[in-house]
Amino acid sequence: MHPAALGLRRALRPRVLRPDHIRRYSSQQPGSSIAQLLQWSPPAEVENVVVNGFVRSVRSMKSRRFVSLGDGSSLAALQALVGADKAEGLAVGAAVRLTGSWVASPGAGQSHELHVSKVEVLGPSDAKTYPIQKKYQSPEYLRTMPHLRPRTPVNAALLRLRSDAIASLTHFFANRAFTQTHPPIITSSDCEGAGEVFTVTPASETPDSVLKDGEFFRAKKYLTVSTQLHLEALSQAVGNVWTLSPAFRAEKSDTSRHLSEFYMLEAEMAFADDLSIVMDLTEDMLRSLSTSLFGSAVVQELLSRPYNADSGFAPPDEVKRRWEGLMQTSWPRITYTEAIALLEEKADLFKLKPSWGAGLQSEHEKYIAEHVGGGKPVFVTNYPRDMKAFYMRENPKPTSPGSDTNSPPGPTVECFDLLVPELCEIAGGSMREHRLEPLLEAMKRHEIISQQDPDAALEGGLDWYLDLRRWGSPPHGGFGLGFDRLLCYLSGVQTIRDIVAFPRWVGRCDC
Amino acid sequence: MHPAALGLRRALRPRVLRPDHIRRYSSQQPGSSIAQLLQWSPPAEVENVVVNGFVRSVRSMKSRRFVSLGDGSSLAALQALVGADKAEGLAVGAAVRLTGSWVASPGAGQSHELHVSKVEVLGPSDAKTYPIQKKYQSPEYLRTMPHLRPRTPVNAALLRLRSDAIASLTHFFANRAFTQTHPPIITSSDCEGAGEVFTVTPASETPDSVLKDGEFFRAKKYLTVSTQLHLEALSQAVGNVWTLSPAFRAEKSDTSRHLSEFYMLEAEMAFADDLSIVMDLTEDMLRSLSTSLFGSAVVQELLSRPYNADSGFAPPDEVKRRWEGLMQTSWPRITYTEAIALLEEKADLFKLKPSWGAGLQSEHEKYIAEHVGGGKPVFVTNYPRDMKAFYMRENPKPTSPGSDTNSPPGPTVECFDLLVPELCEIAGGSMREHRLEPLLEAMKRHEIISQQDPDAALEGGLDWYLDLRRWGSPPHGGFGLGFDRLLCYLSGVQTIRDIVAFPRWVGRCDC
Repeated sequence: MHPAALGLRRALRPRVLRPDHIRRYSSQQPGSSIAQLLQWSPPAEVENVVVNGFVRSVRSMKSRRFVSLGDGSSLAALQALVGADKAEGLAVGAAVRLTGSWVASPGAGQSHELHVSKVEVLGPSDAKTYPIQKKYQSPEYLRTMPHLRPRTPVNAALLRLRSDAIASLTHFFANRAFTQTHPPIITSSDCEGAGEVFTVTPASETPDSVLKDGEFFRAKKYLTVSTQLHLEALSQAVGNVWTLSPAFRAEKSDTSRHLSEFYMLEAEMAFADDLSIVMDLTEDMLRSLSTSLFGSAVVQELLSRPYNADSGFAPPDEVKRRWEGLMQTSWPRITYTEAIALLEEKADLFKLKPSWGAGLQSEHEKYIAEHVGGGKPVFVTNYPRDMKAFYMRENPKPTSPGSDTNSPPGPTVECFDLLVPELCEIAGGSMREHRLEPLLEAMKRHEIISQQDPDAALEGGLDWYLDLRRWGSPPHGGFGLGFDRLLCYLSGVQTIRDIVAFPRWVGRCDC
Repeated sequence: MHPAALGLRRALRPRVLRPDHIRRYSSQQPGSSIAQLLQWSPPAEVENVVVNGFVRSVRSMKSRRFVSLGDGSSLAALQALVGADKAEGLAVGAAVRLTGSWVASPGAGQSHELHVSKVEVLGPSDAKTYPIQKKYQSPEYLRTMPHLRPRTPVNAALLRLRSDAIASLTHFFANRAFTQTHPPIITSSDCEGAGEVFTVTPASETPDSVLKDGEFFRAKKYLTVSTQLHLEALSQAVGNVWTLSPAFRAEKSDTSRHLSEFYMLEAEMAFADDLSIVMDLTEDMLRSLSTSLFGSAVVQELLSRPYNADSGFAPPDEVKRRWEGLMQTSWPRITYTEAIALLEEKADLFKLKPSWGAGLQSEHEKYIAEHVGGGKPVFVTNYPRDMKAFYMRENPKPTSPGSDTNSPPGPTVECFDLLVPELCEIAGGSMREHRLEPLLEAMKRHEIISQQDPDAALEGGLDWYLDLRRWGSPPHGGFGLGFDRLLCYLSGVQTIRDIVAFPRWVGRCDC
């Protein structure tokens, strides 16, 4: 039986658990959740306990059946004993309602078990054809049926982890008076200028009208790749804002880290004077999230189950170290220039030599996460300007560039990547260029607007974003975090396709 | 000065407000929020109070300037007195940081005011060209600049209302152990069969590949119109689920009620035996939301401000009655058949005669909301089968159809529309057909699958949805609610284009 208090769900647990107190939603929705029943050790037998769930397995013993029942509320199953005369329809996968007595169990597996007096088969199942089986099924196989995959206990647990994480983050930001916002999904512009976007067209328009750049919105429209630019507009209205919003990239890379559709957590702060404020927020948020969730039922279940190397999960010990790292205080902060210096000292370790002005390779990030962080996440700040997006604020030029190892040899921007062991980059943020002229210069340098005729290139483009700088643009900054990647990190799931219920990537969009 | 406790934000308010306790986010992000300062009446003058905000107006009086400062945290502005020698750059729209003494005010407007010793203009503004002015600007005009519109005090308040509503709903569902989920945005099928969907194509694909039904995902893909079908799959894994997710319709109707992109709140309950459970949930949720938000700062601000008939808002008294209705218990529930009988008694009142089997017209819904509800929302249940979506569960046939007024003359489904005064339908729900054979029959009747060759028509379509019924499908039901429409109802905003920060509708997708 799994350990652990109910954590986030503790509010549900009354001091004395009685059958009429452990209902799921209302007095009309019958049945107790299995997670709650498994924690319930009444001193004497209790009759008329009702439980709903799905049959995970059935074992025949003489005149009785041992039914293992799950309802997604716990990894552990409830053990129910059913007389053979009542067992019709108790097939693997069936949705059933069982009524019986909750009695102390002689077995070692759990403290109590249900002695069933009444079986109702509410949704029958043909066990022979049911694609979900109790035996090991590979992540690749389960991925072929996203509509059924959540029924496996561990995938149900991952749904609960996501839910608990959203609730915890909502609480964190509400407590700090951040305004949660809904920036648009259909947008006019590609924030990063990366070009790998999806276009949006009404199905009723013919391909001809697609050629005319889409008629429905009078211009070509895209699915958002980041809500940042819109968040900046909203932060100039209400100060501190955040969102947990879908984002999309039409990337053709077929990797364990990329999806075409994913959730991004983004926050933006107005009147934030420097990057340390943004890093403080990122750090506080992740520490608050991990601290509030670590003791929860779902996290303790995920960390304490037996490990199977083929399961698509990182080893629980490793995942536990991730949580411990996130819960620590005072995460190290080093500049990119310092990081390069550190890496150059160990240049022999790397296939690709570290070099100022080039990106940090995965092997470099791993080294820094491990050796600088020592288990804690590490902020790497002030990357070279020309590697980063146009909207990042440039650092003041050092008085004598390149004169010592701490002084960067070229222009840098006020930004950070947050690196964690194994996964590497988990979040990124920056100060935004809040002054009109330097922003225009950066957009010309990035060829987002034309050197010759800036006004022409902005028609229908980013003119509104420049407007934000024309009137009342205080220093501001923010960060973005791939929410699904974070959940992978927290759960140990090794490919992002297994943390999203209905994943979409190149060539795959089932259901 | 606005009344009201800080409501949801109360957690932020320490027992004794001191400048170092009323910071916004951390000790590094300087400044107090104006909402909190306006509630702060220290017995003696307090020095070194720092506040950030945007200049709403400047009034010159002899050697001083009276600056009205807003930061989006309250409708009311903070009054600051600045010596003329320090007033440079204090232009309407500018982002500034003011430091000064918080002293009792001689004026009637507010208890205290800021006597400014230091002005920092962090984001200058050219007041002459700034498009947002303190004087009245029509909703239509403001809609032409969604990136600046949130800076008006009332639009900032609407952002806060949305945020508080999301936090309250998240709390409601977490407390009831509903799992918050992220169903997919890019989908294979059109849930309602309405056909007004957007297609999604990578920008890099040529129109040729569009003709080949899209290559990126190997088949044509759409933006979701409802997450219900996917929620049903998830509810078979973890029981009770919900989501607040974007949804899209390529509707060409140019009305005050329709957007191309909007947020839907949807919930689904497994092992829910009948519709009353789903109605209980809908009612409990809306009552909890309205009860928790009614006393909040933002709602009290919206209800107590002076009314301007041209503002695009319903009169505050009317809006207050809406809140009072939602906070009442035991909302009436009548069947569609009973509603038609009621309407037929008053047939003279209506332009379109009520008739069993035809939809309820807006005038009919209004009559029912007003006369049956008496201020409370009204559930109208059991609509004729052929008016509703294929997935709704059919009611058992009455033993003697049509024999009395309560007995429907034709087949009905277990569904409801929730009607509220003025706005009419605000939510809808149903039991879902959980049995395979009746669902197949309904899909044939709705021509979603072919009578002749059901298997062929399901290729790449709704075969996965039928799978849910093949293995372990218990009775289940749920509801959907247009979140933006709900916010219109709660705020009094009369067109949905003014409740969404960056609204998208036919012909319009700015920024």
